Amino acid sequence: MTARQAFDGWMRETLDRTERALDAWVPGDAPAALGEAMRYGVLDGGKRLRPMLVAAASDAVRGNPQAALRAAVAVELIHAYSLVHDDMPCMDNDVMRRGKPTVHVRYGEAGAMLAGDAMQALAFEVLTPADGEVEPALQARLCGLLARASGCSGMAGGQAIDLASIGRPLAEAELREMHRRKTGALLQASVQMGAATGDCSPAAWSALSDYGAAIGLAFQVVDDILDVTQASDTLGKTAGKDAEHNKPTYVTVLGLEAAQAEARALRREAQAALSRSGLSDCGRLEQLADLVVERDR
Amino acid sequence: MTARQAFDGWMRETLDRTERALDAWVPGDAPAALGEAMRYGVLDGGKRLRPMLVAAASDAVRGNPQAALRAAVAVELIHAYSLVHDDMPCMDNDVMRRGKPTVHVRYGEAGAMLAGDAMQALAFEVLTPADGEVEPALQARLCGLLARASGCSGMAGGQAIDLASIGRPLAEAELREMHRRKTGALLQASVQMGAATGDCSPAAWSALSDYGAAIGLAFQVVDDILDVTQASDTLGKTAGKDAEHNKPTYVTVLGLEAAQAEARALRREAQAALSRSGLSDCGRLEQLADLVVERDR
Repeated sequence: MTARQAFDGWMRETLDRTERALDAWVPGDAPAALGEAMRYGVLDGGKRLRPMLVAAASDAVRGNPQAALRAAVAVELIHAYSLVHDDMPCMDNDVMRRGKPTVHVRYGEAGAMLAGDAMQALAFEVLTPADGEVEPALQARLCGLLARASGCSGMAGGQAIDLASIGRPLAEAELREMHRRKTGALLQASVQMGAATGDCSPAAWSALSDYGAAIGLAFQVVDDILDVTQASDTLGKTAGKDAEHNKPTYVTVLGLEAAQAEARALRREAQAALSRSGLSDCGRLEQLADLVVERDR
Repeated sequence: MTARQAFDGWMRETLDRTERALDAWVPGDAPAALGEAMRYGVLDGGKRLRPMLVAAASDAVRGNPQAALRAAVAVELIHAYSLVHDDMPCMDNDVMRRGKPTVHVRYGEAGAMLAGDAMQALAFEVLTPADGEVEPALQARLCGLLARASGCSGMAGGQAIDLASIGRPLAEAELREMHRRKTGALLQASVQMGAATGDCSPAAWSALSDYGAAIGLAFQVVDDILDVTQASDTLGKTAGKDAEHNKPTYVTVLGLEAAQAEARALRREAQAALSRSGLSDCGRLEQLADLVVERDR
């Protein structure tokens, strides 16, 4: 078995475990159509990159697998809720996501807003099980990392910059700052939450955080590249929408070739961070960095 | 000094401490107008009933005051975010709240949605300080209580029932179930979070939870009564909107007199729960129950 085959097998297992946990923990019996809308918004779709990062980082520090699974589901719930709200008419007004109608198209705007709100709360429910399978101090740590990455200094803050930037020229530094928060914070938190599930020296923590920051930014650079180079049916969402909405992207700010070079440079940065982490078992994190940069959708 | 004067003094102090903490912990410097919108949505207004309940319950169990203050701010942030989202055009479409234009009127729909999202995340940030002033196990407990009260089995679930019930006759049991989740869950969680900050026997916990459930329901019954008996300028929000939206309320389902009798019965239930709690210092919780039932706005 090649390293690539072993990695692919690990990816399938991790994906499968994540899907089963989401299926078990996102309740279908919530009142009215709320549970249905929540499940529609988070099940059967998505690359599950954040859960993969949590799992790979947890493996690298030989972390508590139950805690890692809860962290993976929680971070995916936050990501999924942000997509549900982001697609709404008052934000991006997108009607297609992961190859199917968006939540507000299917369940109405109020239904989508509530589903997103409840998904955010559910993330913190998942992180705080009462049965002792995750020690309370780790629960608190994971809640803190996730909350900080989701809120005004993280994802929501980045979305606010994004919103304010439509139709306005953005310098590269501003664009970077926007994406560091909007997409990067949650990707970095995925790595940090995984690292928190095990023993991790301050040096390793710092290196893994740098790795998370680099791939977080790389992810967005590649997203911007794919938005102009790929068709909607490959992406499973509406392509070209950034240009249509007159949104600044790495491609509009740097040009396509420079954006591609930037993605490669960020991959090298991520690899360098792993090298200095002192952790021996970073192969999956390294392969995830490759995946982020080389993906075609 | 009469008991009433002492209680009023305690209310003023608690209110003041809560306002100062909200002012300190809701950041004004979040990107774009996000911080401004969050502060607009939560500062300078509101009765702060939930923080009062946290503080009174914490006092009753001689709890950690720093933990209680964080719990009070967190629960108020959840309450405030729910109002911001609830007022949006796709929900209640309300333009006036606490005597001023609602957040979406002032900051746009996307701004209001993001502000609400970031307020929810901030609640969990506030509960997980890194500096050790609240022990990690208590942080985890508070996060768990708040998340469960906010999500699909609590507040968001109640809102979903509410949304589905517009223009449809609702039996008393259904109405009660809706409000138990929509308003009651967070009020009950306020009492429970306060109780969690100190030593609390299972019997006292159970009694305080019953107290929280009773005043949670009483609050909503009184809200429905005030919606038909008071003018908008007294309430600081649009009066008569339930009737206008054809929403079932305790008044439409039970009639005004029966609703008033129900509020008094719930107060007696709350008092009985306090009596069996075995706690000696429940005076403030008792006075808060009176306040909930006797309020005129």
